[in-house]
Amino acid sequence: MKQSQLFTRVKREAPKDEVSKNAQLLLRAGFIHKEMAGAYSFLPLGLRVLNNIMQVIREEMNAVGGQELSLASLQEKELWEKTDRWDDAKVDVWFKTALKNGTELGLAVTHEEPITRMMAQHVSSYRDLPVLAYQFQTKFRNETRAKSGIMRTREFIMKDLYSFTRNKEEHETVYATLREAYKKIFARLGLGAITYQTFASGGMFSKYSEEFQTVSNAGEDVIYIDEASGKALNVEVLNDEVLADLGLKRENLIERASIEVGNTFSLGTKFSEPLGLSYKNEKGESCPVIMGSYGIGPARLMGTIAEVLSDGSGLVWPESVAPFRVHLLSLGADEKAGETYTALTAAGIEVLYDDRDTTAGEKFAESDLLGMPWRVVVGKRSLESGKAEVKKRTEKEAGEVSFEELVSFFQK
Amino acid sequence: MKQSQLFTRVKREAPKDEVSKNAQLLLRAGFIHKEMAGAYSFLPLGLRVLNNIMQVIREEMNAVGGQELSLASLQEKELWEKTDRWDDAKVDVWFKTALKNGTELGLAVTHEEPITRMMAQHVSSYRDLPVLAYQFQTKFRNETRAKSGIMRTREFIMKDLYSFTRNKEEHETVYATLREAYKKIFARLGLGAITYQTFASGGMFSKYSEEFQTVSNAGEDVIYIDEASGKALNVEVLNDEVLADLGLKRENLIERASIEVGNTFSLGTKFSEPLGLSYKNEKGESCPVIMGSYGIGPARLMGTIAEVLSDGSGLVWPESVAPFRVHLLSLGADEKAGETYTALTAAGIEVLYDDRDTTAGEKFAESDLLGMPWRVVVGKRSLESGKAEVKKRTEKEAGEVSFEELVSFFQK
Repeated sequence: MKQSQLFTRVKREAPKDEVSKNAQLLLRAGFIHKEMAGAYSFLPLGLRVLNNIMQVIREEMNAVGGQELSLASLQEKELWEKTDRWDDAKVDVWFKTALKNGTELGLAVTHEEPITRMMAQHVSSYRDLPVLAYQFQTKFRNETRAKSGIMRTREFIMKDLYSFTRNKEEHETVYATLREAYKKIFARLGLGAITYQTFASGGMFSKYSEEFQTVSNAGEDVIYIDEASGKALNVEVLNDEVLADLGLKRENLIERASIEVGNTFSLGTKFSEPLGLSYKNEKGESCPVIMGSYGIGPARLMGTIAEVLSDGSGLVWPESVAPFRVHLLSLGADEKAGETYTALTAAGIEVLYDDRDTTAGEKFAESDLLGMPWRVVVGKRSLESGKAEVKKRTEKEAGEVSFEELVSFFQK
Repeated sequence: MKQSQLFTRVKREAPKDEVSKNAQLLLRAGFIHKEMAGAYSFLPLGLRVLNNIMQVIREEMNAVGGQELSLASLQEKELWEKTDRWDDAKVDVWFKTALKNGTELGLAVTHEEPITRMMAQHVSSYRDLPVLAYQFQTKFRNETRAKSGIMRTREFIMKDLYSFTRNKEEHETVYATLREAYKKIFARLGLGAITYQTFASGGMFSKYSEEFQTVSNAGEDVIYIDEASGKALNVEVLNDEVLADLGLKRENLIERASIEVGNTFSLGTKFSEPLGLSYKNEKGESCPVIMGSYGIGPARLMGTIAEVLSDGSGLVWPESVAPFRVHLLSLGADEKAGETYTALTAAGIEVLYDDRDTTAGEKFAESDLLGMPWRVVVGKRSLESGKAEVKKRTEKEAGEVSFEELVSFFQK
């Protein structure tokens, strides 16, 4: 894309009312727009990042047999009363609204209830199971405070997968599969090395639930990491019994602030029983379906990447999520740069081409702020040398690549 | 995809509380789920259709230079008071809610206000214009009645594009470009021949607005068509002055029920003035930006296709939007059908493979109901003849294609 066509403009200063680094950087760079506290819009560059993150997640969910769907946001009281989660005293983040005839409605804070009720119309036999179904859908949560930029908002897209299985053993197998899928996701997003499988309290149906926590000073959570095993504990389960259970020693644990980037829950029959989701087994007996839920917030991941991978000059996007792979700058060599843009894009390489009539200093500074993985500079010197200057966003030193070899350089 | 893996099940009967054909068919076929009156969820097959429709729209919006973004649903009172559209007496389809501290919020019924305010942070000079920005985002509308299945719901995804131009001439050019893009969209979706550019009342800033109306008995609207010119009128503008203006004669007009599948509005400075969206022209003078808006509802289009292209046996999807291009049925020839499935999918052809252990009658009836464009049957006879039976959903007679030629048949 030609940058002269991109409508967003970089801001010189971070907005004064934003305390979080992710929102400061993303707002300055024009990736997002603040609609109000806790509600952001995604502008073209930001939406490209968000879509890339969702596509990585989608691929890993499809790889384990997940079927994508999309559930409604509007929710009726009667459904949630069946699981005792309608009352604001029980679930304290509802946004409630009403039809014109006065019928109360809620905006989905999560989707266990509607997906369980829906699934009861489709699952009846042991032959219908297991089922893994997921969506990318907006959740609305009436958070008292919203202060972590796009990492904790009142309206956000969530990937939530729900598993429906015949018994505990099948559930455990699916649960383990999802855990591995999650690890692949965080690795592909460039967060693998600093994201820990973290044990948390489990509730009625399993000893533990699990979280994935990314180490960051911007995090609202605190975890205790055992570097040797790569395991971590949430503070809720930091006690002698759990340590013994997991084979960890208190003296080896390191305390770190962290961001919860994913979670997995064993739900047992908590939803299937009250909502009538059962199946007939081989003997014709009716059995409740065993469920699990598995969440990841794509925008929170985008915020986390902005927090932990950025540097003093701006954003730093991994190739897997960058809005464009290459940022091409023309420094007074528009014809050659234009040819380079055409050649790279024709080869399927995604390029943001800074074709604007502005200073070299401004182009370099903006390029660092926007944070594409590769910067390619075509200047007057290039016309003499026959080479473009090529620099990785994560490296200080630039190299040179001849124009003939540029396409194949990026096709590697 | 193997049908044995698909969790949705076809229902024998249409639900009794649905009066609209689109919802009856889509519910029976397992494409959608009814969450409540006016709110539907999209199950795997339905989501594939919806995504295909959105991709057609996206391609045409990108082709005219549209930049995709995604705006927040939560909206603050202060913003909409500036344009006098907060009051329920002015806009009567708001869903309102509130933060815990009592601050009133609304759920976006449309997005002129937020996009105009956002754009004011990015547009300042004549060099920044024109801009075309669009999104696919949920609208919430508190409709009194919801009775047309997925064609009029209280929660729906809309493609809304907004144009920002320097002056009336530039606006007219953009507006005409969008009109042509819309025509391409309806043609690609198989609705071109029965969808009419329809003149409607224009409001303050242009003589007419325009609608695109698809002829259908399921429609809530009535239009007057001049078949010779392909133009139509909304009842609002059916008067002698307008007829003279458009060169139409009353006696040539045919009255038809129709579904509004798109609309385009000239907004002038209605939003840019109160919300401070202006630019400096070449002389340094401040001028208000001239706006337009252009809507299409992907789910309404899906419902329209279900209404007008279906037949007595079920749904009929055009290739451009079908969840899968080919429905492959194995009738007691699982090994050969499995090989065929592998060969077709390896060639990039999207196949739903009915590998289930059920009767031929059931497979044929379900295949008609689900409505993929092509049906390929591999049965015991195929093993002798070396040929698969190939039938278009829209045709009665089946043909035969040899297994060697099947991939190339579908690659044509």
